[in-house]
Amino acid sequence: MNQWIYFLDLCGTSVFAIAGVLAAGKYRMDPFGVIVLAFVTAIGGGSMRDALIGATPVFWIRDPNYIIVILATVIMCLILVRKPHRIPTYALPIADALGLAVFTVIGAEKALSLGLSSMVAVVMGSITAVGGGVIRDLLCRQIPMVLRIEIYATASIVGGICYTLSIIVGMDSMTSVLFAMFSTLIIRLSAIRWHLSLPAFDLKTKRI
Amino acid sequence: MNQWIYFLDLCGTSVFAIAGVLAAGKYRMDPFGVIVLAFVTAIGGGSMRDALIGATPVFWIRDPNYIIVILATVIMCLILVRKPHRIPTYALPIADALGLAVFTVIGAEKALSLGLSSMVAVVMGSITAVGGGVIRDLLCRQIPMVLRIEIYATASIVGGICYTLSIIVGMDSMTSVLFAMFSTLIIRLSAIRWHLSLPAFDLKTKRI
Amino acid sequence: MNQWIYFLDLCGTSVFAIAGVLAAGKYRMDPFGVIVLAFVTAIGGGSMRDALIGATPVFWIRDPNYIIVILATVIMCLILVRKPHRIPTYALPIADALGLAVFTVIGAEKALSLGLSSMVAVVMGSITAVGGGVIRDLLCRQIPMVLRIEIYATASIVGGICYTLSIIVGMDSMTSVLFAMFSTLIIRLSAIRWHLSLPAFDLKTKRI
Repeated sequence: MNQWIYFLDLCGTSVFAIAGVLAAGKYRMDPFGVIVLAFVTAIGGGSMRDALIGATPVFWIRDPNYIIVILATVIMCLILVRKPHRIPTYALPIADALGLAVFTVIGAEKALSLGLSSMVAVVMGSITAVGGGVIRDLLCRQIPMVLRIEIYATASIVGGICYTLSIIVGMDSMTSVLFAMFSTLIIRLSAIRWHLSLPAFDLKTKRI
Repeated sequence: MNQWIYFLDLCGTSVFAIAGVLAAGKYRMDPFGVIVLAFVTAIGGGSMRDALIGATPVFWIRDPNYIIVILATVIMCLILVRKPHRIPTYALPIADALGLAVFTVIGAEKALSLGLSSMVAVVMGSITAVGGGVIRDLLCRQIPMVLRIEIYATASIVGGICYTLSIIVGMDSMTSVLFAMFSTLIIRLSAIRWHLSLPAFDLKTKRI
Repeated sequence: MNQWIYFLDLCGTSVFAIAGVLAAGKYRMDPFGVIVLAFVTAIGGGSMRDALIGATPVFWIRDPNYIIVILATVIMCLILVRKPHRIPTYALPIADALGLAVFTVIGAEKALSLGLSSMVAVVMGSITAVGGGVIRDLLCRQIPMVLRIEIYATASIVGGICYTLSIIVGMDSMTSVLFAMFSTLIIRLSAIRWHLSLPAFDLKTKRI
């Protein structure tokens, strides 16, 4: 089980690093900006979580695999993607949705495994999932996606509640993880597909 | 005594959460943005303080009452305040001044209780008091109020110095707390009343 | 040796505080804004590093000399520099380059002394060196210099790699420190002298 969550965590890290690279491409950053945004998006949320709960040194310092996965992802992206503007516009939100689902579960699981309360577990799931994106958006001088798009963080909160409840009622780990990830993905992808977040983008058009 | 400071802390948390909700209303955020800004304003400064001094897990993780107070405050605000633009414009700075006074004392008291130096206690009082507002303003893409309005953080620093000195000269806790809060409030409210911060707003008008 | 690195650290702190004061002057901040930017620039990166590796209370809480050095630097600057707009425009980047070199070595050295891996040491060198400037730029609502100017953080990364490799091959501490600082300074100052960062400034002109 732990092996399996660990593998998911590395996948989520890679997916969020891609989201960071895509953001860097969108804002025409230089190669170093790409690496910074990939790192920040991928490990920013988890670092915030670990610093808040006192699980220091934070996860990616204790386990070099995270740094390696991010660097490998960035290099792969820079080789495969020569023309950032040709990436379809829906690629960034979908990569983001996948990372959102995985990191929500990882964050909630870590809080519960440390004996913290269910409420804190839900908060930690959200911080892990949206924290990196918030820092990335701040660095790009954007109002964080999480404040613009209601269904974004809501999906993470619902996923965290699903995971915590599943564990409380005694569901086994793998089912809980899949159930929570599925809930998060369905909500977030529905929001993307049917433009449930359009009003928030309207705010952006008018005011920034 | 501790009970009393704890009660003040919860009041300050609620007041700062209201300041966060008012800011969210001002920038027309969606419901989730309201919750995020309430949380960030209320516990951002204290979380920074605890992360810096190593008092982890940070206070609101160990004590679920803070999360409950913030959620209750947000729900109450969303019920009572249907039309955010009808809130009088002075409500936000006054709520902020009250939180500023309480959190300055809480932060300085926590540093002193951990045996840290007086100078660090003053800094921690300020971080606790202004940290949440700084993060809130960053998330709203505003230049932080603390950098625009001189008398804002200055009030917190004076309050921290008053508290630390009172403790050093052997004043009892409650008197020290009241004396420090009173100093902070007088300075900050005078600055609001007589527009002592006008030049800083001028800077804003010209440059942003 | 440790005495010597400690002295360098205090010098770097002072130099970065000056960089913060110059930034505050550039954006016409009030006296308190000057102090905040000096503090944030000088100890922001190291605080992030210590919070991430769990070396809490962070360095400037345990050692009051850092606060004293920053306050003394700010007072000195405010006395000597009455007219911020008369500071030559190259003063800020050169002060920044010196701080960059010192803090890179300090960060990498701290990580290695705690037994962390070489890869983490390079990352910690960069976080220590560029973290404070990133927070300062965020507070000034600028896209962080580190994302605009490729050669900036690259210089820190190269310096961190030089230091880590020097230690691994068994070079003595002082030689390693000087070698790493020299590499960082040469790269950064060359970038400033021959405007190797011009394209990044172009991005800024076009888009912000």
